[in-house]
Amino acid sequence: MIIILKADIQEEQLQNLLEHVESAGLQTHLSRGTFRTIVGVIGDETAISADRLRSFTGVHDVVPVLPAYKLASLQAHPQPSVVDVSGVPVGGGYLGMIAGPCAVENEKRMDDIALAIKQAGANLLRGGAYKPRSSPYSFQGLGEEGLKILRAVGDRHDLPVVTEITDPRNLDQVLQYTDMLQVGARNMQNFVLLNEVGQTSTPVLLKRGMSATIDDLLMSAEYILSKGNPNVVLCERGIKGFDPQTRNLFDVAAVPVIRSLSHLPIIVDPSHATGRPELIPSCAMAGLAAGADGVHVEVHDCPEEAMSDGPQALLPGQYAELATRMAQLAELLGKTIPVKTGASP
Amino acid sequence: MIIILKADIQEEQLQNLLEHVESAGLQTHLSRGTFRTIVGVIGDETAISADRLRSFTGVHDVVPVLPAYKLASLQAHPQPSVVDVSGVPVGGGYLGMIAGPCAVENEKRMDDIALAIKQAGANLLRGGAYKPRSSPYSFQGLGEEGLKILRAVGDRHDLPVVTEITDPRNLDQVLQYTDMLQVGARNMQNFVLLNEVGQTSTPVLLKRGMSATIDDLLMSAEYILSKGNPNVVLCERGIKGFDPQTRNLFDVAAVPVIRSLSHLPIIVDPSHATGRPELIPSCAMAGLAAGADGVHVEVHDCPEEAMSDGPQALLPGQYAELATRMAQLAELLGKTIPVKTGASP
Amino acid sequence: MIIILKADIQEEQLQNLLEHVESAGLQTHLSRGTFRTIVGVIGDETAISADRLRSFTGVHDVVPVLPAYKLASLQAHPQPSVVDVSGVPVGGGYLGMIAGPCAVENEKRMDDIALAIKQAGANLLRGGAYKPRSSPYSFQGLGEEGLKILRAVGDRHDLPVVTEITDPRNLDQVLQYTDMLQVGARNMQNFVLLNEVGQTSTPVLLKRGMSATIDDLLMSAEYILSKGNPNVVLCERGIKGFDPQTRNLFDVAAVPVIRSLSHLPIIVDPSHATGRPELIPSCAMAGLAAGADGVHVEVHDCPEEAMSDGPQALLPGQYAELATRMAQLAELLGKTIPVKTGASP
Amino acid sequence: MIIILKADIQEEQLQNLLEHVESAGLQTHLSRGTFRTIVGVIGDETAISADRLRSFTGVHDVVPVLPAYKLASLQAHPQPSVVDVSGVPVGGGYLGMIAGPCAVENEKRMDDIALAIKQAGANLLRGGAYKPRSSPYSFQGLGEEGLKILRAVGDRHDLPVVTEITDPRNLDQVLQYTDMLQVGARNMQNFVLLNEVGQTSTPVLLKRGMSATIDDLLMSAEYILSKGNPNVVLCERGIKGFDPQTRNLFDVAAVPVIRSLSHLPIIVDPSHATGRPELIPSCAMAGLAAGADGVHVEVHDCPEEAMSDGPQALLPGQYAELATRMAQLAELLGKTIPVKTGASP
Repeated sequence: MIIILKADIQEEQLQNLLEHVESAGLQTHLSRGTFRTIVGVIGDETAISADRLRSFTGVHDVVPVLPAYKLASLQAHPQPSVVDVSGVPVGGGYLGMIAGPCAVENEKRMDDIALAIKQAGANLLRGGAYKPRSSPYSFQGLGEEGLKILRAVGDRHDLPVVTEITDPRNLDQVLQYTDMLQVGARNMQNFVLLNEVGQTSTPVLLKRGMSATIDDLLMSAEYILSKGNPNVVLCERGIKGFDPQTRNLFDVAAVPVIRSLSHLPIIVDPSHATGRPELIPSCAMAGLAAGADGVHVEVHDCPEEAMSDGPQALLPGQYAELATRMAQLAELLGKTIPVKTGASP
Repeated sequence: MIIILKADIQEEQLQNLLEHVESAGLQTHLSRGTFRTIVGVIGDETAISADRLRSFTGVHDVVPVLPAYKLASLQAHPQPSVVDVSGVPVGGGYLGMIAGPCAVENEKRMDDIALAIKQAGANLLRGGAYKPRSSPYSFQGLGEEGLKILRAVGDRHDLPVVTEITDPRNLDQVLQYTDMLQVGARNMQNFVLLNEVGQTSTPVLLKRGMSATIDDLLMSAEYILSKGNPNVVLCERGIKGFDPQTRNLFDVAAVPVIRSLSHLPIIVDPSHATGRPELIPSCAMAGLAAGADGVHVEVHDCPEEAMSDGPQALLPGQYAELATRMAQLAELLGKTIPVKTGASP
Repeated sequence: MIIILKADIQEEQLQNLLEHVESAGLQTHLSRGTFRTIVGVIGDETAISADRLRSFTGVHDVVPVLPAYKLASLQAHPQPSVVDVSGVPVGGGYLGMIAGPCAVENEKRMDDIALAIKQAGANLLRGGAYKPRSSPYSFQGLGEEGLKILRAVGDRHDLPVVTEITDPRNLDQVLQYTDMLQVGARNMQNFVLLNEVGQTSTPVLLKRGMSATIDDLLMSAEYILSKGNPNVVLCERGIKGFDPQTRNLFDVAAVPVIRSLSHLPIIVDPSHATGRPELIPSCAMAGLAAGADGVHVEVHDCPEEAMSDGPQALLPGQYAELATRMAQLAELLGKTIPVKTGASP
Repeated sequence: MIIILKADIQEEQLQNLLEHVESAGLQTHLSRGTFRTIVGVIGDETAISADRLRSFTGVHDVVPVLPAYKLASLQAHPQPSVVDVSGVPVGGGYLGMIAGPCAVENEKRMDDIALAIKQAGANLLRGGAYKPRSSPYSFQGLGEEGLKILRAVGDRHDLPVVTEITDPRNLDQVLQYTDMLQVGARNMQNFVLLNEVGQTSTPVLLKRGMSATIDDLLMSAEYILSKGNPNVVLCERGIKGFDPQTRNLFDVAAVPVIRSLSHLPIIVDPSHATGRPELIPSCAMAGLAAGADGVHVEVHDCPEEAMSDGPQALLPGQYAELATRMAQLAELLGKTIPVKTGASP
């Protein structure tokens, strides 16, 4: 950590600051420049709050040298993590290909879609039972009934399932039915929820918030890791942008940036990132080419009847075509798309 | 609602679309242009999902003509709402001047700050007991102990109190102690929480999320209103921006924009918006001049010792100076800063 | 300047780096921490390129301590600058109230508007003769004919005039007619143009680009100052934002941020910032309350007939009402709205 | 074009509006809804200004149905354009692989780099002679001396050359030496410059501005096309974002978005988009996978000595490795990387 002092700091203020830092067990190293004096802080800088240092009179700025997350960092775990989702590994060369409708609507539809995506090569099935909707008047999901359908369909097709958790009070219920918990973009900094899913051992798909920096995303992962759950898969799903052409702005560079900072798997979600089906294939391919550990695509067999987010889903046939191209690209990149076989969990 | 069709839509697709709209009890009106055909939808367009219409083959775009919120709109309630916070009205010419520390730390400090802001002219006291922090290793608040201190200090100085709610499971507890519930920016789209606070009758301070459009903010207010709680005060506290000079980007135009769309009071929070104490006074004055119904400022008597967000707090003396200037401006603008007197609630 | 080294930097790389810095006449100061080593650079850091240092093997990051601009900084000129626009001072307590149509259209209209804004209290007249339009098919301005009208009308009403320069090849022509040159937002980093206007002594109104940080804006001002022209007035006119409610995002905090960094006057332009006439008064008042040195408002007597940007103009009567409120606010803030009297320039 | 009226529009205002539209040779079609009346405008909507319509009293909003650009649109030219850069076709399945240093520094260095990138498989050589730099104190390029070096080196290695134009006054000079003119991001809306390059027949590489929407970019292309030069290649080079991890935000979805709107070739520039060499390969691959018609990468043999933008350049060996991977991906995608052979131009 580096503390940059104001030009007019007084000696007493400086001593006050140095004492504060040293009382936390850290050493200080003063460097008096022509225009500014800087203080190098030596030791474990997470023992001290940068924010609090910024409050000291005479401090111009504080520059952290290390990130505030530890467990999520490459320093803590230099090898890529592989997260096992009930038999499907994600990360470290294994791609998690998640597909399915936005919301679970009924068993017949779910079953048709699951069959189609399984045949196309997907290895994880998604479907929402508790839907966070921006309007209180929109369909909010089937609840436990939806979870039961998702579980049954996933078992039938040997596809581990992913579903969203929105309320800490129904975590126990959701855990009975799912192989992976999704924390949505709007809940990425719902720290109450992060603390709860951190106390399970179920894999968590943590989606990046629309205004979250990559540091913010990794700090949210740190919440989960710090509570004891190491099974976190990150997901880039588009951030807020200024061009209305796309629903969100797909930040594909987040993939290599996260790779340079963290061992956690990172997948991409071109459905939410673009909100336009005709853009999904290009962005899915881009994500894989950038090194993503998987791709999350919404698939619906009749978007016109979808109860949620129809416009951003591919048809099963479109998905199959994309999946073929993604498989070719995966091979070129030396990645494996694992398949779950054997008994249901 | 206007549906813009693709140039190559087929007659059968068009009929399919028209039937769908009409089956929802709406009328359609076709307008065939040189390059595009458009369909005007006549009737209550909230009866139909724009998203679902976008999924129909042959649809180029759907342009809603009315906002998706109803209860929050000026159409529903043409006069400005006045929210009564235990004797302090906010809105409709009455300014809510909220001040206090980021977190409740101890009773002595809370008492000193409350005395100072009361004397300066604030009429509502804030203090967090449950703190959403971006790092799991940061101070997370005193919990119920903090609520007790806040209540006692507020009563002592005749200042109704505002505190943040982060977990639906401790709503009952928080309600015992507070006059106003704050829903923070990171929880603006935590719909589970919005549903819960909507089922109380306690005033809610709803802060705008960092990537929320004003429509998003009003939709979140609609969640609360639609559950039966009409006492919502909105708060502009800065959105995500690209210039690191300020912690967030203070969107002062949100004040007149909201005024043009909604009857709900809107206050500004220059502390979170800027993150720099030297910018707070200018932005507080700007917010009032733009027509805000109040100003939320963090005040701490020793930022260097603050357990949270010290760098964005004013000292009590700085706040007093600002409060004097704000009172002059309020007078020029014909606004009133109400004072609670009489018995504690 | 602080250089943060990578953990794995080798001794030879470090020596190479230190030699490079020292060969530029600067001193270095090494501080070896537990996790990182940092190098403090002592001396005039503008003698060395941060970018080039970032290219050295083993360098993690470079943190400049001083801004890259010099002449625009408060260090170079601790007192606020006052720019004289042919008898109307702007800055240092004097407010520049600029009003007029987007484009000069004809002499009658220009004269009517000038009369109205003069009576309302404006002290500078704007009007574009060379219009940068996003469509090649839009009206591009009257050229020299427009300049002649602007000059004649300004003289008739004792209003110094402001007009935009877009092409270095007609600078001499424009200089014949105007009291102040405007460099538009889209040309803020047209360095060729900045160099040219820097070689005149005519006041320059430099508008902030839509994606420009405040540092970028001050660096563009530095171009002009470094060529010898000290008469620069900055203008905040809205930056790119994500909410379509407003045409741009009015960054009112830019006013106190610039005040904390530079001596140059800073005015606000709520017309371009919002693009909606009903929001202009609130944002104009907000800008003044934040400490701006003036307000730029587009005024047109028949927006329906305006050849450019009609929707963001106030009617003369609306402007007069706003001007009255701004004058009251200016008085409260202790600012003066100077009036040019006497002979034409 | 659709005009949405305010609920309280008066009959006379409506007639006034309809007359205005019809006087431009367009037809109107009224659709009276429950809450709003809308007017469909039938005919060539570019004959009328949406902005001007927005200024009419009683108009709530105007929704254009067709884009404002014509020549750049797919409607005007349904097949992908192929731009010939002195023997190297770009677009329509042919990839333009542009590489070279940010600035031409000296002939030896330029020659070494050109040899390396040619061997690696690049087919176009870049190098700046006139550099737009954000600081007036930075190296501004070698001028004509740099152009001469670039031309000589390009000829020697059979690489057509690309260089930036910043000043309309030296267009003739630059045209003597270059095969392709680059208009940089900061000049994307320098309409004076666009008009000038539009009057040549030399291919233009038009880079997207940092706050430009895709519509803005296509409107700037329209300027060039409308002046008679059809040889425009677009370039996505990163837009303004909020995360300091990358210099800009690489908007890879711009590739398929542009493909859905325009026939013009679109290439990507991961050097400027990320500003970090370790991210360039992933983003280059992502761009190609998304369907880009080429990749622009800065290459320098000694970034530590680069006079401009060293930190975002790859070393020749790094570029060769990336070029091999890009060639494999191009093959998978069915694209061709053309090579210029034979006599110099």
